[in-house]
Amino acid sequence: MPETIGSLLLKRLHNLSLHHIFGIPGDYVLTLYKLIEESPIQHIGTTREDCAGFAADAYARVHGIGGVCVTYCVGGLNIVNATACAYAERSPVVVLSGSPGAAERIQNPFLHHMVRDHTTQREVFDKVTVASVILDDPVTAEQEIDRALEALRRYKRPIYLEIPRDKVLTPVEPQSLTSAQEMECLSDPAALKEAVTEVRAILADAERPVILAGAEIYRFGIQHDLRQLVERMNAPIATTLLGKSVIQEDHPLYIGVYGGLVGREEVLAFVDQADCLLTLGTVLTDIDDVKVHSRLLASGRTIHATADAIIIKHHRYDGVRFEDFVRALSSTPLPAFPSRPLPKQDPRLFEEPSSSTPVTLRSLFGHLDSLLTKNHLVIADVGESLFASADLHVHQSAEFLSPAYYTSMGFSVPAALGAGLADPSKRIVVLVGDGAFQMTGTELSSCARNGQTPIVIVLNNHGYTTEREILEGSFNDLQEWRYEQICGLIGGGIGLLIRTYGELVKGLQSAMGDEKNIYVLNVFLDPADRSTAMTRVAQRLAKRLT
Amino acid sequence: MPETIGSLLLKRLHNLSLHHIFGIPGDYVLTLYKLIEESPIQHIGTTREDCAGFAADAYARVHGIGGVCVTYCVGGLNIVNATACAYAERSPVVVLSGSPGAAERIQNPFLHHMVRDHTTQREVFDKVTVASVILDDPVTAEQEIDRALEALRRYKRPIYLEIPRDKVLTPVEPQSLTSAQEMECLSDPAALKEAVTEVRAILADAERPVILAGAEIYRFGIQHDLRQLVERMNAPIATTLLGKSVIQEDHPLYIGVYGGLVGREEVLAFVDQADCLLTLGTVLTDIDDVKVHSRLLASGRTIHATADAIIIKHHRYDGVRFEDFVRALSSTPLPAFPSRPLPKQDPRLFEEPSSSTPVTLRSLFGHLDSLLTKNHLVIADVGESLFASADLHVHQSAEFLSPAYYTSMGFSVPAALGAGLADPSKRIVVLVGDGAFQMTGTELSSCARNGQTPIVIVLNNHGYTTEREILEGSFNDLQEWRYEQICGLIGGGIGLLIRTYGELVKGLQSAMGDEKNIYVLNVFLDPADRSTAMTRVAQRLAKRLT
Repeated sequence: MPETIGSLLLKRLHNLSLHHIFGIPGDYVLTLYKLIEESPIQHIGTTREDCAGFAADAYARVHGIGGVCVTYCVGGLNIVNATACAYAERSPVVVLSGSPGAAERIQNPFLHHMVRDHTTQREVFDKVTVASVILDDPVTAEQEIDRALEALRRYKRPIYLEIPRDKVLTPVEPQSLTSAQEMECLSDPAALKEAVTEVRAILADAERPVILAGAEIYRFGIQHDLRQLVERMNAPIATTLLGKSVIQEDHPLYIGVYGGLVGREEVLAFVDQADCLLTLGTVLTDIDDVKVHSRLLASGRTIHATADAIIIKHHRYDGVRFEDFVRALSSTPLPAFPSRPLPKQDPRLFEEPSSSTPVTLRSLFGHLDSLLTKNHLVIADVGESLFASADLHVHQSAEFLSPAYYTSMGFSVPAALGAGLADPSKRIVVLVGDGAFQMTGTELSSCARNGQTPIVIVLNNHGYTTEREILEGSFNDLQEWRYEQICGLIGGGIGLLIRTYGELVKGLQSAMGDEKNIYVLNVFLDPADRSTAMTRVAQRLAKRLT
Repeated sequence: MPETIGSLLLKRLHNLSLHHIFGIPGDYVLTLYKLIEESPIQHIGTTREDCAGFAADAYARVHGIGGVCVTYCVGGLNIVNATACAYAERSPVVVLSGSPGAAERIQNPFLHHMVRDHTTQREVFDKVTVASVILDDPVTAEQEIDRALEALRRYKRPIYLEIPRDKVLTPVEPQSLTSAQEMECLSDPAALKEAVTEVRAILADAERPVILAGAEIYRFGIQHDLRQLVERMNAPIATTLLGKSVIQEDHPLYIGVYGGLVGREEVLAFVDQADCLLTLGTVLTDIDDVKVHSRLLASGRTIHATADAIIIKHHRYDGVRFEDFVRALSSTPLPAFPSRPLPKQDPRLFEEPSSSTPVTLRSLFGHLDSLLTKNHLVIADVGESLFASADLHVHQSAEFLSPAYYTSMGFSVPAALGAGLADPSKRIVVLVGDGAFQMTGTELSSCARNGQTPIVIVLNNHGYTTEREILEGSFNDLQEWRYEQICGLIGGGIGLLIRTYGELVKGLQSAMGDEKNIYVLNVFLDPADRSTAMTRVAQRLAKRLT
């Protein structure tokens, strides 16, 4: 059997450990779907394409690579936002799309599902991926597949591969070109050495360095190297909200989530007093606070490494790759800094309220914090779910997922589907607001279909609360759903209405103790209830508005 | 009070009769939302942005203009598909988006919700709209707004207007430029005269002309002119599926839906025997059959008019506008052709089955056909809902809506929200498959919130049946929902499970007789049941696949 464009592509993806692919079939992609069905890659149907995109994104964050397979335009153009989220937060998702056959395009310029012309979809995806390719030529197909996959692996960002439906079964022409392995660009050893030497010189002059780590540490699977670096330097480490849990949160050198809008004051103040900042695997965004970086930049004490560039002081190393840089730092001789007092942990003055008290964010998160173990994976949606989660304790690497930078609502329930398939050993706990749940909550249907049993906690504060805090108006109101009744609709799971702290304790006890069922807790909250993090975030956002 | 960029835009939209705008707020668009709240335009919240897009599209199809207002990227990039649908099917939808303030972009290159850079979203929308503009300059804002709105009115396709949040309240500089009215490009009178003269010459030689009309007739509001043309020529008229109902379906000259894949054989054969084809307001797509056009083109007997171009035989008139052309034809002296036998109407041998018989597509559509009146507006989703609808009788203009060319699943329920607001006098009847309902059925929530009472008929054939017919595989299966329980979840409506013909008759009787409630009928169908139209479509699609 000769290798075809379709079979070669699926073989390459499987070799990169893609074991599941999400999506919805359609006539332009059916031939490829048939090949997937015959391949070792398992197709996971979703109710909507955007949910497939979020599921693939979460799968990629946990598993290292994710994939989605959709039909032309009506499918593909529905996952532009989910792909943009994966781009913004560096999640390596492969977007496969079918398209009209090359032959039929000649016969008729107007084919169904078409927008303007045959390149519209590729042009759109070109804006939100690191490589976008149409696989229509058996001579170049192998090279193009390898080039795109190399971009995915290097930048940990989504790629787009489109196959016209009459090319899926076209045999590829054998190549004598370099294989994917050989094409890989590695760091220039001399440049790497120079960069590491520079870091050592900067650290030799420093007394109070701080490491700030972001999600890319996890994307490149170098959590162990980071930990070794932290411990050898004996340097305090903070993470961004997006990077929360790239280091164990009970590590003695971990000081908490840093970020101008959401981080606690103590952590901010501590980082601001650093005399050297080593930023690894994150850009500094408007959600963070860039003042400390600017100050240290002026005194030549900043090292800023991401997959896009290694920047030391004011110059950049283009020949050095992020993961090589972090690995080299973790093994090169570096000074060990004296221990110093770290910011106090959150006092956690959580006193159990009486059973009949209405649930508050404080009692919900306080109680949940006491229940989470290393067997849980927490996924927070956008809004109060995310902000209040900033202070949750998660117990080991990758146990916390959230679209904390791009902040696209509706991520969490589809992400539970993806993360659950990527790591079936974990019980998934979803924290989601009512507005976000209305967007994609029905994707629980696919969890039920695949025998997954996430616990979904709907923080029902009756509207778009983050926005209420910034600017109130009737546009922040929502139709009041009986969220717990989703179980009846989708045909699976146990729904509970939770109003009091006693009901919450009992409901979570049932949910945690029963691994066989999906649980949906519709937790009534006072619309005026706010976490301290949320209040801070919203006030700062409102200030910018005016 | 000086006019600001935001207030001027809303004033222009209201002057064009935009009375409702759909969407979800977000921090980058809150200032604009506040202005909308203070304006005569009513904001209609939806559960998801893509649903806002479909609602605005349906509103535009019924009302002449529609609008959606969303936040940056996480909002906007979620409506790319709905906007593409409006583009492909010519629906004049205004997409408004907020974006980061011009000032804050300078301070920080990485703002939340951002993908690659600040122009990403505009670049994406440039591919699926006829005008995309960023309103960041008070000197040019008025001119840019008018230019974009003129493109919307001329091409009846979506436009994209983005306002950085710190420019919404910026006063516009008064202009002495031409107003929107003056800028309008009208037809060149000499070119129009020449084109009409040509048509008269072609018709003078013809004996069996046929008119094929499409959705653009409706978009430009020239149904009356079309009818006058048809009657003066005494010429038989067919419509495309997308254009179904642009002429009253009980008109004596109406012969039915034409289209290579879905039309009845009798209609196809009749049109194929024409010796002159006047195509008005539609392109011929792969869903249609272009053979007759090619044959007649060779003999110089084709007139093909759309909003993009007026093409007679092999040449085009760029200076002639579609609506002017149709109006001129309807009033110029033209031959009246002798009456001739028209294709037989569908025999409609619908015999009522016994009450205990399971519902079939035939009995469902047969019974529904007997109930529909001019007080109903039917919206068909994609799949069997659409194909089986091809033979439904709808009783006057614009009573049938469907994304029949772009065929994006999940259109119908959000469209019910939009169409219901555009024409509150109509009772909306939605025909939707189970797969499409899983995509956007929860948008019924917004119908409930706005006091609308559509009747939603879920054709539950347990999977993606159109695809099953082309290529079977487990990827065509769905989780079985209890669709009627959606009413419990969203807090409104009456859900019924329908298995037998007797239950169907009773259920529809209750639904039609009760204008105060949403009805959701979960109609069980045999997965092997097919309408004749569907079988024909799927077989032809499958043939192309191989």
